[in-house]
Amino acid sequence: MRSVEWHDGVLRLIDQRRLPHEMVILECETPEAVAEAIRTMAVRGAPAIGAAAAFGMALAALRSPASDRAALLRDLEAAARLLKASRPTAVNLFWAVDRMLRRAADEGLEDPQAVREALVAEAIRIAEEDVETNRRMGQYGATLIRDGDTILHHCNTGALATVDYGTALGVIRTAHEQGKRIHVLVDETRPRLQGARLTAWELLQLGIPFTVIADGAAGYFMRKGKVNIVLVGADRIAANGDVANKVGTYTLAVLAREHGIPFYVVAPTSTIDPNTPNGDAIPIEERDEREVLEIEGVPIAPRGARAANPAFDVTPARYITGIITEKGILYPPFDLHIRRALGL
Amino acid sequence: MRSVEWHDGVLRLIDQRRLPHEMVILECETPEAVAEAIRTMAVRGAPAIGAAAAFGMALAALRSPASDRAALLRDLEAAARLLKASRPTAVNLFWAVDRMLRRAADEGLEDPQAVREALVAEAIRIAEEDVETNRRMGQYGATLIRDGDTILHHCNTGALATVDYGTALGVIRTAHEQGKRIHVLVDETRPRLQGARLTAWELLQLGIPFTVIADGAAGYFMRKGKVNIVLVGADRIAANGDVANKVGTYTLAVLAREHGIPFYVVAPTSTIDPNTPNGDAIPIEERDEREVLEIEGVPIAPRGARAANPAFDVTPARYITGIITEKGILYPPFDLHIRRALGL
Repeated sequence: MRSVEWHDGVLRLIDQRRLPHEMVILECETPEAVAEAIRTMAVRGAPAIGAAAAFGMALAALRSPASDRAALLRDLEAAARLLKASRPTAVNLFWAVDRMLRRAADEGLEDPQAVREALVAEAIRIAEEDVETNRRMGQYGATLIRDGDTILHHCNTGALATVDYGTALGVIRTAHEQGKRIHVLVDETRPRLQGARLTAWELLQLGIPFTVIADGAAGYFMRKGKVNIVLVGADRIAANGDVANKVGTYTLAVLAREHGIPFYVVAPTSTIDPNTPNGDAIPIEERDEREVLEIEGVPIAPRGARAANPAFDVTPARYITGIITEKGILYPPFDLHIRRALGL
Repeated sequence: MRSVEWHDGVLRLIDQRRLPHEMVILECETPEAVAEAIRTMAVRGAPAIGAAAAFGMALAALRSPASDRAALLRDLEAAARLLKASRPTAVNLFWAVDRMLRRAADEGLEDPQAVREALVAEAIRIAEEDVETNRRMGQYGATLIRDGDTILHHCNTGALATVDYGTALGVIRTAHEQGKRIHVLVDETRPRLQGARLTAWELLQLGIPFTVIADGAAGYFMRKGKVNIVLVGADRIAANGDVANKVGTYTLAVLAREHGIPFYVVAPTSTIDPNTPNGDAIPIEERDEREVLEIEGVPIAPRGARAANPAFDVTPARYITGIITEKGILYPPFDLHIRRALGL
């Protein structure tokens, strides 16, 4: 199944907290349940969060008892606030919720039932578009991968992080489908271990050769000449090309430049926020310190130890070789090429 | 107690695999037991390994049934080979074992009993010297720490990594004892989590404020301007100043230079190997992949996933601001200043 799937008025999510040990399906029937699934990272990955939030809006419409259009729109506004408060960094969440609100506000929808039907259709459209977008990015990105390449990859950007197929992992998948012999170095990606848990799980299923490494070992492999290209996803791209992504990404970008290794970000244009001028304006989520101090519920530090847990970091545009989108690969100057890609 | 302690003909080690959850004392009565403790990282940290190996040689002398000097020396040679094979990177191990062999070969020691007594005394001397050396490094290094500084620290370099007091953590400790208000950012240091488990444990006991962070977050804090200085230990320093240390060190060095943050290595001159011309000549230990794939025995990756686990990396001398030794702080050109410090 897809990581985000609509099924008879219920949103079904693969519970990513349980992988790779168990495949558990989470069923969400209310926008509150969707917001909680996003907050707790049962669903994660910027595009998957966006699609889940869109279905959260559809659920809000379906569950609302409103009998007139104005009341329904008020309920949708409330659901939008709830969903937007679930996580602060990834912009696809806001993008998807706002797109759903715009659809609901369409003057052509005359009664609540029409709005409800339109919102379900719109959420399904957002999910379908995401899959199509990923496949296009895969095609563009795979042109950068040569036979024999070793690709360094951070966090999880695969089918789980999207509705299906993946962003950075989608590029890897396309290259593999094209018959290129590739190897993936999988950053385990502490604290939530999305690399070791999720990316390894996806690569095993796809039959793509890989090796898990500790995050601190990336520099070792780059210095040894073992890395040909770095591919990462993004949670928000500012108008100037600065990229917020899973913590550790910035370190990889600095290392890549130090070694002359190309560093590409793979993200749909829905991840670009033209209203965020640069990386310093991106809010960085600080998550519970227990994610650092415990692993799978087992304490790894002495009682009384405190931790800091920024979930993301910002990679300034100057470290980025290119941004692979569904509209093509953007190169510097990013501000100009981002405006063009967004038609601004 | 000290991490490495001699007690009535028995070597007592704090079992560092069990910290911070349990304080377990491991008693070693044979060189084989000492080699196993080093191999499994019950004792770890270059200076602590060196002292433990010295006591391993003393135990070899005490346990040898040899009744003549030549037979005893043959037994010591065998024990030396065994101990040297326990871990390949940290040079203090080889330095300590060779020093013990030289002592045993002293022409002035006429019978086996004299050799046995001399070796016990020499191992005790190595341990005492280590503590004295650490205190001197602490004094030199603390001159670099200002009131209010935040220090980024990798792995464990404290009392546990040495006989007592610590190298990089010894510098932090001295600055704290001098009344400087400091804060330590503790890299958790995957895969073995020496930062989260051991450094946090030591800092709690010392009452020095600290925050544990995921290894991938170091770049985030540097870019935020939160790090004033980076202090790390070393497992082997080559004649040109290249430094092998716990994997992840090189990444910190690259990041520190990118941000104009001073990067200091703290290590006794026994960690300098004048016979290793540069970092490329340092053997890097590749440890069991299960250290990456499991944490505290709990699998974190799907069954079938493979991992690579280089235990160390090499930081080229050009990234290093200075090397703090018991003979003073060495600055570039390191090759010249290392030769002088070693009296070569």
